[in-house]
Amino acid sequence: MTRQPTLAVVGATGSVGTVMRELLSSRRNVWGEIRLIASARSAGRTLRCRGEDLTVVELTPEAFDGVDVAMFDVPDAVSLQWAPIAVERGVTVVDNSAAFRMHPEVPLVVPEVNKEAMRSRPRGIISNANCTTMAMIMAIAPLHREYGLRELVLASYQAVSGAGQIGVDVLHDQLMKVAGDRTLGSRPGNVRQAVGDDLGPFPAPLALNVVPWSGDLEADGWSSEELKMRNESRKILGLPALKVSATCVRVPVVTGHSVAVHAVFGSELTAEDARGVLRNAPAVILVDDPAAGEFPMPIDAVGTDPSWVGRIRRAMDDPRALDMFITGDNMRKGAALNTVQIAELLAKELTR
Amino acid sequence: MTRQPTLAVVGATGSVGTVMRELLSSRRNVWGEIRLIASARSAGRTLRCRGEDLTVVELTPEAFDGVDVAMFDVPDAVSLQWAPIAVERGVTVVDNSAAFRMHPEVPLVVPEVNKEAMRSRPRGIISNANCTTMAMIMAIAPLHREYGLRELVLASYQAVSGAGQIGVDVLHDQLMKVAGDRTLGSRPGNVRQAVGDDLGPFPAPLALNVVPWSGDLEADGWSSEELKMRNESRKILGLPALKVSATCVRVPVVTGHSVAVHAVFGSELTAEDARGVLRNAPAVILVDDPAAGEFPMPIDAVGTDPSWVGRIRRAMDDPRALDMFITGDNMRKGAALNTVQIAELLAKELTR
Repeated sequence: MTRQPTLAVVGATGSVGTVMRELLSSRRNVWGEIRLIASARSAGRTLRCRGEDLTVVELTPEAFDGVDVAMFDVPDAVSLQWAPIAVERGVTVVDNSAAFRMHPEVPLVVPEVNKEAMRSRPRGIISNANCTTMAMIMAIAPLHREYGLRELVLASYQAVSGAGQIGVDVLHDQLMKVAGDRTLGSRPGNVRQAVGDDLGPFPAPLALNVVPWSGDLEADGWSSEELKMRNESRKILGLPALKVSATCVRVPVVTGHSVAVHAVFGSELTAEDARGVLRNAPAVILVDDPAAGEFPMPIDAVGTDPSWVGRIRRAMDDPRALDMFITGDNMRKGAALNTVQIAELLAKELTR
Repeated sequence: MTRQPTLAVVGATGSVGTVMRELLSSRRNVWGEIRLIASARSAGRTLRCRGEDLTVVELTPEAFDGVDVAMFDVPDAVSLQWAPIAVERGVTVVDNSAAFRMHPEVPLVVPEVNKEAMRSRPRGIISNANCTTMAMIMAIAPLHREYGLRELVLASYQAVSGAGQIGVDVLHDQLMKVAGDRTLGSRPGNVRQAVGDDLGPFPAPLALNVVPWSGDLEADGWSSEELKMRNESRKILGLPALKVSATCVRVPVVTGHSVAVHAVFGSELTAEDARGVLRNAPAVILVDDPAAGEFPMPIDAVGTDPSWVGRIRRAMDDPRALDMFITGDNMRKGAALNTVQIAELLAKELTR
């Protein structure tokens, strides 16, 4: 291919689509045409990308004509229906939904971890990992390569933007309602009363609360988010028997998913060994100086590309186990950035 | 003793002292005189307790004359100095600081778990457990009794009131500063900027953030709070070799500490087995119906006495392991209530 490839952004008006457009505007440009695609409701709107005003076109089979690579950020059901239609028209799809992630013929790719998995994509689809898994896997993968991962026990602290712009709006609404009343949170029931019925996509108020739930109810009391962390970690690392237990919890943070990680390896390692590996790992920032108040936190990680890792401690009862805390921007590496990175690797293939 | 025993509340003006006075006003009355003791700064103030107006007296050796039982909620250094002075005057001390908890001659007591440990108290002091440990241990102890606990992996979601009234004030101040600006939390640095320098007892802003730190820095990167969870769980359960890894995190919640728990037992159990045990456990509320939005949360647990337990799942890789989520009021059972319960057991001994 001598021309620069054409990219479609499907779901361009959503909150992840917005970050995708920002990234496309700020990264080295590898694309010819960029086409913004959305539902009929948004078609006709003008959105800015790469300094150009682009008109959003409706999601139809014809919208994919001439497209080389499409990045999808739409609900699972929409991906399930439309990704194969795009593929039929010659498009390679990078999908950020959960629809295809566990499909045996769809690679689940984090470029810094398993770029080689991209090579085999018989369905013409490459999946992007879940946002909580993504933040965690960036730090765990390089440690796994050196010490052989055996088990993960995970507890998440997930931001509301993981539930879309509506999640962000609802948290800000709730903060307005609770700010200024200093009795709230000290007496039973008064936060629920102050927040009222507008819970948005969440099962309970997020302001002044933590909610141990994210996603849908699956078998045996697990949430879909917890199973994603387990299944996707296994697939990305190529460890089908990896032991994983996750508890996923939503917290009143706008953007930045955090995970408390207890990781058991096959061989012994010290906290300083782990720091040495992570200092040299791609797309990881080591922030591990508690005496100086330096540890990973959402308010610092938001808007940045890497995973922030700190609070690294060797487990006191097992010289093969580490405890640590990891925070990553769920909208960037956790969603838009990883998708853009995969799309750019496809562009490189096409223009090679 | 034919008269009702005399109780002293040392630290009566603090936030835990306030809850102690509330509890003394609402529980069955077993006390003769109640004497409120505080620092010179607070002496002379009038505070309400059991419907009476009581004048706060200064902490002096003489303040303990005629006292049978004293509940201390003061900084570690104050307990360390003053508990032995009270004991010398014939007082039995129930101390809520960390000063004596790990002392081999001081029992660490949770009445529902190890009441028998109260019998031997050669120092005249009984310690009250750390607030995060307390919430968790209430649900873990009855499961341990049935299935033999081997290992705990813990991640906490701790409320700001654990750092005293100043922690609560600072969070409310910060909420006022961030409410209304819908850009906050979506861009790097803007929460820090909005909150400013008033961080109170915390190393970073709590509004729109989570802070993976609680307590002081101990050896090898552990926080004092994390070591308390380990050491106190071992002592209360009488399991000196229990494997424990904890990561302690502060969240923007006023009151109600939560813990995500991965517990490994000596024998197999199902989630339903665990629910059966917990339904009959003292001071535990089982809230485990995710489909109905029922799981333990701080906004529901605040102001209540029991530990709330839910999200119980059997680990998918180990039939002897459970994952669960536990929330308890850190000011009540986590501090004031447990202290009052121990004091009431001492009153019963005295009047037997």
